[in-house]
Amino acid sequence: MSESNRVRTLGAILYEDFEPLDLYGPLEMFGLLAPELQIVTVAEESGAIALFAGVKTLAEFGFNGCPPLNLILLPGGIGSARQVENSALLDFLRERTQSAEITMSVCTGSAILAKAGLLDGRRATSNKQLFKHATEQSDKVHWVAEARWVEDGPYVTSSGVSAGTDMALAVISRLYGRERAEQIAAFTEYSWQSDPDQDPFHKYLNHVDLQQLLVTLGRA
Amino acid sequence: MSESNRVRTLGAILYEDFEPLDLYGPLEMFGLLAPELQIVTVAEESGAIALFAGVKTLAEFGFNGCPPLNLILLPGGIGSARQVENSALLDFLRERTQSAEITMSVCTGSAILAKAGLLDGRRATSNKQLFKHATEQSDKVHWVAEARWVEDGPYVTSSGVSAGTDMALAVISRLYGRERAEQIAAFTEYSWQSDPDQDPFHKYLNHVDLQQLLVTLGRA
Repeated sequence: MSESNRVRTLGAILYEDFEPLDLYGPLEMFGLLAPELQIVTVAEESGAIALFAGVKTLAEFGFNGCPPLNLILLPGGIGSARQVENSALLDFLRERTQSAEITMSVCTGSAILAKAGLLDGRRATSNKQLFKHATEQSDKVHWVAEARWVEDGPYVTSSGVSAGTDMALAVISRLYGRERAEQIAAFTEYSWQSDPDQDPFHKYLNHVDLQQLLVTLGRA
Repeated sequence: MSESNRVRTLGAILYEDFEPLDLYGPLEMFGLLAPELQIVTVAEESGAIALFAGVKTLAEFGFNGCPPLNLILLPGGIGSARQVENSALLDFLRERTQSAEITMSVCTGSAILAKAGLLDGRRATSNKQLFKHATEQSDKVHWVAEARWVEDGPYVTSSGVSAGTDMALAVISRLYGRERAEQIAAFTEYSWQSDPDQDPFHKYLNHVDLQQLLVTLGRA
């Protein structure tokens, strides 16, 4: 099978209180590449995962037993505050990113990658209102405060929530061609903001403190 | 409790092969209204629901046992082709929309509402590429071929996939005020297209035949 015909497996990493659009925006776009791409959902343990506001979803695989991954997608959300301390997740990421072609994070997902040391010496971005949560995890990362998303080799990190969908289409463009990305955007009636340097939300930099937000939400 | 302080319950209706972003885009926005709004996920039977590309999610409630709903959110997707023939869903919608404050559909979800007779005499829209799938279900609906979303009394129907997120923010604005909707858009770094009459995807009207698409995807 030629390089261009091989089926890729994308691993979507789930954890309690991840942000729904961080994950399902990109999965909407990648899902439309089937059967050339298949998606697996992975969490520390397989089974139900609670999101905010009473919504639950399913992780098909636990970290043990997760199949080989060509692409990794790590969402953010208020749950990342706990995950930066979760050595099981950090170890899983350290191992699996080694063999992955591209590792993507959305929103505060880059805080977790940074804490795992995976962004050392690289350029990366994160959620703008909660930017400090990311920068606090590592001073070895070249944090970019104004970007919709940042590509640095195999690591692609996006700004908050909705930015992940723009990033996903950029990664689809890189792997499958610009025309394919544009077809998917048209089919999903998505107005793709395809310039990574245009960041309308930079103005909200550090407007919110994550610890305070967790207290407000009763999740501290 | 005053009208403005009451907690609303939003019922997100799930079925096999619904389109992920149809549901999770709006749920991202509504979820940030917690604790003033809570979300329940509902399907014909509670438990795992398979989406495309190997992803599964969870329905907390079956139609029997579903709590009272103030708001209803019905996604679309290729699965709607089967749901327009599902009398259990049509009956559930006929019953629950009577007591709901607002019923929303995204994408081909309006085909299901139309088949249930709930849009008779009303203005409504649907996915643009698959528009015929909706219009075929009922000739008693005033189908609007060029709109991002359409509000007609308690029914709000949106165009395809991503349009649901713009509609959700409009409904939040109607119920909780424009400022609240704008705060949520800013927090999720979402460039809200807040004009329902701006429809960049009208040009793709009926570009795709749903039955052909189902054959291509091996789901016919």
